[in-house]
Amino acid sequence: MSRLLVRGGRVVHPDYSEDVDVLVEDGLVRALGRGLRAPAGTRVLDAAGKLVLPGGIDPHTHMQLPFMGTCSADDFLRGTQAALAGGTTTIIDFAIPPRGGSLLDAFDTWRRWADPKVCCDYSLHVAVTWWSEQVKEEMAILAREKGVSSFKMFMAYRDLFMVRDPELYAAFEQCKEIGAVAQVHAENGDIIAEGAKKMLALGITGPEGHELCRPEAVEAEATLRAITLADAVNCPLYVVHVMSKSAATVIADARRDGKVVYGEPIVASLGTDGTHYWDKEWSHAAHHVMSPPLRPDPSTPGFLMNLLANDDLTTTATDHCTFNTCQKALGKDDFTKIPNGVNGVEDRMSVIWEKGVHSGKMDENRFVAVTSTNAAKIFNLYPRKGRIAVGSDADMVIWDPDATRTISAKTHHQAVNFNIFEGMECHGVPLVTISRGQVVYEAGALSVAPGHGKFIPRKPFAEYVYKRIRQRDQTCTPTPVERAPYKGEVITLTSGQAPEDTTVGTGRQATS
Amino acid sequence: MSRLLVRGGRVVHPDYSEDVDVLVEDGLVRALGRGLRAPAGTRVLDAAGKLVLPGGIDPHTHMQLPFMGTCSADDFLRGTQAALAGGTTTIIDFAIPPRGGSLLDAFDTWRRWADPKVCCDYSLHVAVTWWSEQVKEEMAILAREKGVSSFKMFMAYRDLFMVRDPELYAAFEQCKEIGAVAQVHAENGDIIAEGAKKMLALGITGPEGHELCRPEAVEAEATLRAITLADAVNCPLYVVHVMSKSAATVIADARRDGKVVYGEPIVASLGTDGTHYWDKEWSHAAHHVMSPPLRPDPSTPGFLMNLLANDDLTTTATDHCTFNTCQKALGKDDFTKIPNGVNGVEDRMSVIWEKGVHSGKMDENRFVAVTSTNAAKIFNLYPRKGRIAVGSDADMVIWDPDATRTISAKTHHQAVNFNIFEGMECHGVPLVTISRGQVVYEAGALSVAPGHGKFIPRKPFAEYVYKRIRQRDQTCTPTPVERAPYKGEVITLTSGQAPEDTTVGTGRQATS
Amino acid sequence: MSRLLVRGGRVVHPDYSEDVDVLVEDGLVRALGRGLRAPAGTRVLDAAGKLVLPGGIDPHTHMQLPFMGTCSADDFLRGTQAALAGGTTTIIDFAIPPRGGSLLDAFDTWRRWADPKVCCDYSLHVAVTWWSEQVKEEMAILAREKGVSSFKMFMAYRDLFMVRDPELYAAFEQCKEIGAVAQVHAENGDIIAEGAKKMLALGITGPEGHELCRPEAVEAEATLRAITLADAVNCPLYVVHVMSKSAATVIADARRDGKVVYGEPIVASLGTDGTHYWDKEWSHAAHHVMSPPLRPDPSTPGFLMNLLANDDLTTTATDHCTFNTCQKALGKDDFTKIPNGVNGVEDRMSVIWEKGVHSGKMDENRFVAVTSTNAAKIFNLYPRKGRIAVGSDADMVIWDPDATRTISAKTHHQAVNFNIFEGMECHGVPLVTISRGQVVYEAGALSVAPGHGKFIPRKPFAEYVYKRIRQRDQTCTPTPVERAPYKGEVITLTSGQAPEDTTVGTGRQATS
Amino acid sequence: MSRLLVRGGRVVHPDYSEDVDVLVEDGLVRALGRGLRAPAGTRVLDAAGKLVLPGGIDPHTHMQLPFMGTCSADDFLRGTQAALAGGTTTIIDFAIPPRGGSLLDAFDTWRRWADPKVCCDYSLHVAVTWWSEQVKEEMAILAREKGVSSFKMFMAYRDLFMVRDPELYAAFEQCKEIGAVAQVHAENGDIIAEGAKKMLALGITGPEGHELCRPEAVEAEATLRAITLADAVNCPLYVVHVMSKSAATVIADARRDGKVVYGEPIVASLGTDGTHYWDKEWSHAAHHVMSPPLRPDPSTPGFLMNLLANDDLTTTATDHCTFNTCQKALGKDDFTKIPNGVNGVEDRMSVIWEKGVHSGKMDENRFVAVTSTNAAKIFNLYPRKGRIAVGSDADMVIWDPDATRTISAKTHHQAVNFNIFEGMECHGVPLVTISRGQVVYEAGALSVAPGHGKFIPRKPFAEYVYKRIRQRDQTCTPTPVERAPYKGEVITLTSGQAPEDTTVGTGRQATS
Repeated sequence: MSRLLVRGGRVVHPDYSEDVDVLVEDGLVRALGRGLRAPAGTRVLDAAGKLVLPGGIDPHTHMQLPFMGTCSADDFLRGTQAALAGGTTTIIDFAIPPRGGSLLDAFDTWRRWADPKVCCDYSLHVAVTWWSEQVKEEMAILAREKGVSSFKMFMAYRDLFMVRDPELYAAFEQCKEIGAVAQVHAENGDIIAEGAKKMLALGITGPEGHELCRPEAVEAEATLRAITLADAVNCPLYVVHVMSKSAATVIADARRDGKVVYGEPIVASLGTDGTHYWDKEWSHAAHHVMSPPLRPDPSTPGFLMNLLANDDLTTTATDHCTFNTCQKALGKDDFTKIPNGVNGVEDRMSVIWEKGVHSGKMDENRFVAVTSTNAAKIFNLYPRKGRIAVGSDADMVIWDPDATRTISAKTHHQAVNFNIFEGMECHGVPLVTISRGQVVYEAGALSVAPGHGKFIPRKPFAEYVYKRIRQRDQTCTPTPVERAPYKGEVITLTSGQAPEDTTVGTGRQATS
Repeated sequence: MSRLLVRGGRVVHPDYSEDVDVLVEDGLVRALGRGLRAPAGTRVLDAAGKLVLPGGIDPHTHMQLPFMGTCSADDFLRGTQAALAGGTTTIIDFAIPPRGGSLLDAFDTWRRWADPKVCCDYSLHVAVTWWSEQVKEEMAILAREKGVSSFKMFMAYRDLFMVRDPELYAAFEQCKEIGAVAQVHAENGDIIAEGAKKMLALGITGPEGHELCRPEAVEAEATLRAITLADAVNCPLYVVHVMSKSAATVIADARRDGKVVYGEPIVASLGTDGTHYWDKEWSHAAHHVMSPPLRPDPSTPGFLMNLLANDDLTTTATDHCTFNTCQKALGKDDFTKIPNGVNGVEDRMSVIWEKGVHSGKMDENRFVAVTSTNAAKIFNLYPRKGRIAVGSDADMVIWDPDATRTISAKTHHQAVNFNIFEGMECHGVPLVTISRGQVVYEAGALSVAPGHGKFIPRKPFAEYVYKRIRQRDQTCTPTPVERAPYKGEVITLTSGQAPEDTTVGTGRQATS
Repeated sequence: MSRLLVRGGRVVHPDYSEDVDVLVEDGLVRALGRGLRAPAGTRVLDAAGKLVLPGGIDPHTHMQLPFMGTCSADDFLRGTQAALAGGTTTIIDFAIPPRGGSLLDAFDTWRRWADPKVCCDYSLHVAVTWWSEQVKEEMAILAREKGVSSFKMFMAYRDLFMVRDPELYAAFEQCKEIGAVAQVHAENGDIIAEGAKKMLALGITGPEGHELCRPEAVEAEATLRAITLADAVNCPLYVVHVMSKSAATVIADARRDGKVVYGEPIVASLGTDGTHYWDKEWSHAAHHVMSPPLRPDPSTPGFLMNLLANDDLTTTATDHCTFNTCQKALGKDDFTKIPNGVNGVEDRMSVIWEKGVHSGKMDENRFVAVTSTNAAKIFNLYPRKGRIAVGSDADMVIWDPDATRTISAKTHHQAVNFNIFEGMECHGVPLVTISRGQVVYEAGALSVAPGHGKFIPRKPFAEYVYKRIRQRDQTCTPTPVERAPYKGEVITLTSGQAPEDTTVGTGRQATS
Repeated sequence: MSRLLVRGGRVVHPDYSEDVDVLVEDGLVRALGRGLRAPAGTRVLDAAGKLVLPGGIDPHTHMQLPFMGTCSADDFLRGTQAALAGGTTTIIDFAIPPRGGSLLDAFDTWRRWADPKVCCDYSLHVAVTWWSEQVKEEMAILAREKGVSSFKMFMAYRDLFMVRDPELYAAFEQCKEIGAVAQVHAENGDIIAEGAKKMLALGITGPEGHELCRPEAVEAEATLRAITLADAVNCPLYVVHVMSKSAATVIADARRDGKVVYGEPIVASLGTDGTHYWDKEWSHAAHHVMSPPLRPDPSTPGFLMNLLANDDLTTTATDHCTFNTCQKALGKDDFTKIPNGVNGVEDRMSVIWEKGVHSGKMDENRFVAVTSTNAAKIFNLYPRKGRIAVGSDADMVIWDPDATRTISAKTHHQAVNFNIFEGMECHGVPLVTISRGQVVYEAGALSVAPGHGKFIPRKPFAEYVYKRIRQRDQTCTPTPVERAPYKGEVITLTSGQAPEDTTVGTGRQATS
């Protein structure tokens, strides 16, 4: 039996903190308490003066994603090593089938890519990129048998991944039916497609064109549309990569109005902004290209952080999907060909600590909630993941809130040759990362074998999400008004008024 | 030469009032001034102690519309008589081609229906119910040659009139190109179609189902979407029949943000509410069925009136489209078959005076703006219509602000056998209505011949709407960042990372 | 050693629920776990199929308050019995000194009244009704030595309790200094005082005058003012009895903007509305008189519940301050003399369950947070109170979420002869109430002795509140711009321009 | 008889434009029309290809104001010359009595200063800096006999000009009574006074301290408070110098809610921002010091312009109050001693054209409304001023919308040695300024004698403002509920509950 004792630290829960030791046995937390004693042979880690956090959960990554003619630079090996070095012990990646492709096949493909390489635990969302009875049935199988209880739909990438409102509505209905969380990439794909043509026609071929053809309003519109559609079927909704003040406000207002919707800002939108698209150096600008784009309004990161602190936004992720400069250069003459994606899986915890906690916008408990607990609850990993509690997986980070480090592509563990946070000095440094009871990162060094990470299946009907959904089904269903039947005359075409050339309005109003 | 002198009244302009006489010659206003003298033979109307208003303009009616298996009860004769009796001297109706049908043919059909019957002046909007090169070309012809400079697109009535976002985008582009005002019926047709099925499945077949399957959010969503699409092409947008607080707020916020968008509440949404759908008497409830529906929130009318008073909403109309009880009864067993539409063309001026002016929410000048002037400006009838000014058409109403009348189907001039404002006592009564210099309504009696009214063609590029649009085209077009070209390597599929079973993301991002 | 085992229930925490037994020893929770065994003699309570909640905390009561010429009907005996019967095991009352009076004296007085009578645990806030060095010093003593770490200031009740902005500012500064939470009764006392005169002058002497002279805007204005003042000194603020949509929105917006502010709706504002002031029966209307008043807008309770569910509002209380009809009748001819106050201490848990949880607006965990945990955190009782955790006080309720009961003055335990929730059927019924390990209410019967309850002192600088406050002090303090000193000429009165009759503006601008 | 003919221009009204000539006789507009002929001797000005605007009205200036130990640099001579050079033909200045001083005396003093010097027409507001029966009576006299129908109250400048809520309430009541428009300087004077002390204590003595001690929230709070107080007495309110997004939003929201309130951004807040306070050069920073301050958020000017374009804000002014560098230097060691004020009277029209019209945010008609007409309507100068109409004063500007000029202190006509718009290139240039029919500025040269300007008295009860106010008085006054009198018992102190040491709450609730 392997044992570990984390001694003397301040354990941070999502709701409070306490000064207790943590005893780990066989990968699980066995006890929390003051002055715990451990049998001989137990490794003891000194956490005096430090915080002990639940390992970070990054619910949005794209490792080794084949995309836009190339493949993202961080694969499941390098990407999960970087995660651990940054204090993140679980990622959730996306299996994305092509239009017309099988969701099950995609799931299997991603498992085949990931399983031998992953250094931290992982789980999978699956994307719904088209609609059919087969897709619907495969969603059910994935939820029932494969541990997938969240599905992402794209409202952008027209002709590639994009689904239209009827498909979206159907997908939301099916998510609700099988107890899954519906996710959306919220941008209006039509406006983007047309806008991109316009920008190129204006001679704007550089990265700034990427933002100009998909401004904030395009994100806010799609966000409201998705919320409206999801609410119409009482399906919980999770909006990935919230990038703008206006989209975030749409979500916050919907929550205030009682909608079951969650917003996920990412470390890029919380830590930098879209003024970089106007950088004079093409590659610098291109390395910031992602969708939805970063916003030129420099008050965006602070605004999103305020909303995150206030639970208007709920989780934080990265959309980690990296491309080296030579890959970005596929779009050197046409911004629409720049592979979309930025880094973050290693940087997330420190950047959010710096901008969120050190700044005084949130406390350490809210930090734990937004970097770990809330994702665990929404994606039904809780309390196995997301909390340091007896019986939970021993995924922990010993965190120094006072130390600082400076982010750089030169020193990071990510494979990509650029870092969008280059030069940022961050308070909040992971000293030791523990994955299921194993010290995998310590004193700046990784010690973990490929395949150490495990696939974590997730059941449907997460309590945190579905309690209200089910209650509403029970108490909010309308009933008919009781009335005496209409007894009068029924006349259709009024004589003399309906000319023979009547050509419109012959069908039923709405249900046809 | 026919002459008329309106003496002693207070002439109300959209921006101020003045105590002047009005001299009319040959249908036009010839002079305003104190103590005007008129040649012998001039008819003199005494307006002492009364207001003299520009005749009302109702920019949204559907006379004798063939719709949902029947035809609306007020035809161009009865409907325009009722308009005059209520103080309205101009209507703008809609020519609606079927899917696949010619816009020009529809225009001709409506002219053929209207010309021999109309008692007040009228103009026509044309609906775009599908999209093709032919439609695009016909829009241009209508704008150039036929006097049509406004086109309505439906975002609801799926499979009947509804167009999707790409068509909407294209239609907005063409409107902008030809100088027309784009109009939308803003509701999400997909949610409605699915919602209607659900209600019927729940056994809800009565009129309340009509509202339940298309709640406010459905209107607000579509409103924001239309605004976002229109703004993407810098096209002016006019949202017809604003029915809810949330949709009105979307418009108001967009205006505050600088968008060129106009909202049109109707007298139904300003004067009554959707609690009537739950009335125990089926026919009462059914007579309120229209789309978008009236809202159950009883604070809606006051809220909309506040926004109208404040220029967050701009014009008022009626969507006058009446059906007798025996016609409404087509949907006695299925609310989706109830012909949609309510009355208002006769009631509008008095109801808005009562709820808007008598209540203290707006003054007499704003009343003139929202019942006449603003519609004239937006639809390019100004200053021929919409203002009592030298050279303008002599369309006027002598208005008693202190008298009251009680609205009733028993006494109204509208053909329909029901009035949604039944029993409402209104301050503000039209005493005399003058259409192009002819007294057509006086002392409760109409004196006008069918065909007295004229079709009023409208030129494109209305100044009021297009000045800002054109200026923005000149000053707000982005330009490329000047950069040194990227000189480095360009790599596509990274060796070792791109597995042979790569299946996604081979196309271009957005412009495909 | 007294022992109790609650077996087979579902223990509800503020963040999740778990199916565990709870073992209690000597008034404290000793263990949570499945299949716990207890020594012989342990009393076992069967909670199978039921929920086990932390006992409710009502942070706002006024037992036996001498007020407006009489004294509130529920004293510390009857009031705390009623609390227990409703599932509430802790109250926080207010010691209120007169203007010019000693805060310490008031504290002692209230202790003397409460200690011999209280049946549940209690704590005390102290009101600051005037300002002086003595008051400032006594606040410090109360925080340091007496267990009082929250102080309430009144912005209404002019000439009685009301303090003006400079006093408010000073009080906030002192709260911040000593680590207390500042509380405000937020209404503009000047507008109320003048408005009341106006209503009486209009002949409006009945209870409706109470609302008419202090409409929503009066509450919203004061709320924004208090937030602005508190934020200026970086002092945490707690707004008691949030009664209106507009005041709640002010708080919610401030939180979204990062302010450390908490809003407390009460069960009255969450469960009923101000239409009652227009009731034809005087006594019915008068029994709803409280300040700020209930609001006539019937959508208020649902709106506030949505915000409470969404953490825009944080806690729930009652402002329990009851007067019998014969006491209310002091104001039978003049609404300004009706003693202010309504019931709620017994009703709160059930009404909020019905309107909040049964309706699907919040889940059981949020219910625990808003009825118990959050108050414990803000007022520094956590985790002793507010959570069922090892080491915490064994304050618990066995709760039947499916049972219903109907509220009535005939059956309630409150002393007052009226219940504002009369006839309301509530899901969610307390079966057993346990106070510090003792079963005090069971099967509809109380078994508790006066004085069973204890005064619970509260330390300053509650972590939940003050972590962000202190961090902001460290990182958000501005620093001067470094500049070269100004070397030029300095001229005061310009010759020829400053006439001898200059009479204004001789002082310094702002600091005088 | 002096005659002038402006030929061939496009006359811009607040509601539309028309291509007409303008004939002027004896200082008044005599005719508008195409191809007007003028008698021999008429001077003809060619305006072909140019716009003809109503002369600008600047409703907020402080010429030769004795303030903060010095006197503002532009006196009534230089200041009004500069106004004319910029296209402004009327100013409204403020007579400000000291605390305890007579309003009538102040009025007389300002008249004595202004009359011999003014080159353009002017009018006067009077400030209410304290409250008494005398003040109240003098307000009535000023309104009745002196042509003053607007009064400004300061909510800042504690101990100098500031009045508290009860005085504010009383002043609003009196304004309403006498038909005046109430104006407020909206900032919370208490927070400012305390904040200034704090900044100085932190060692912040430079101009940045000025903004830091009175951030946006201080302005927004006072704005809401003033609106709430004014609405409580149904008094129209005009908020001078709206400087921040948040204050502007408060006003816009209040208007949307039906309040009779007007917001006045100034050219400084529309054309520059508060980042200048952090300028490294002290004098540059100091020259931007005014109250409320310019805001550091650089999106402020565009935001305010959007609201101005949308009629959320109504007029534009300058708060022109200039001090030379040597005067500003009074506060070189203490920002609280820097005389407050900036330039603008000459710059306003061009800067607003550039930022508002050239940018596409508003059209030429809205420009006329916000620079001239709306001020004329609110302050009851309309239609004598504010419109080019037959019978109106011939105050006009021939405006070249395409020409540009660059603003500079080196070339401006203002007396002050600094210009906050230095270097700004503006489209929109006044070519000729005509004041009551006299060409006073042409080809860059002034030709006007001191005293050419006249004092313009203004009557109370401006139609534009008071129509709604009076209607609301008639229709919105509440009436009592009719009830049977309460017949039951009335008991005061409940025996046994009211201890002898009862010390609080003996008075009446609110009206004492």
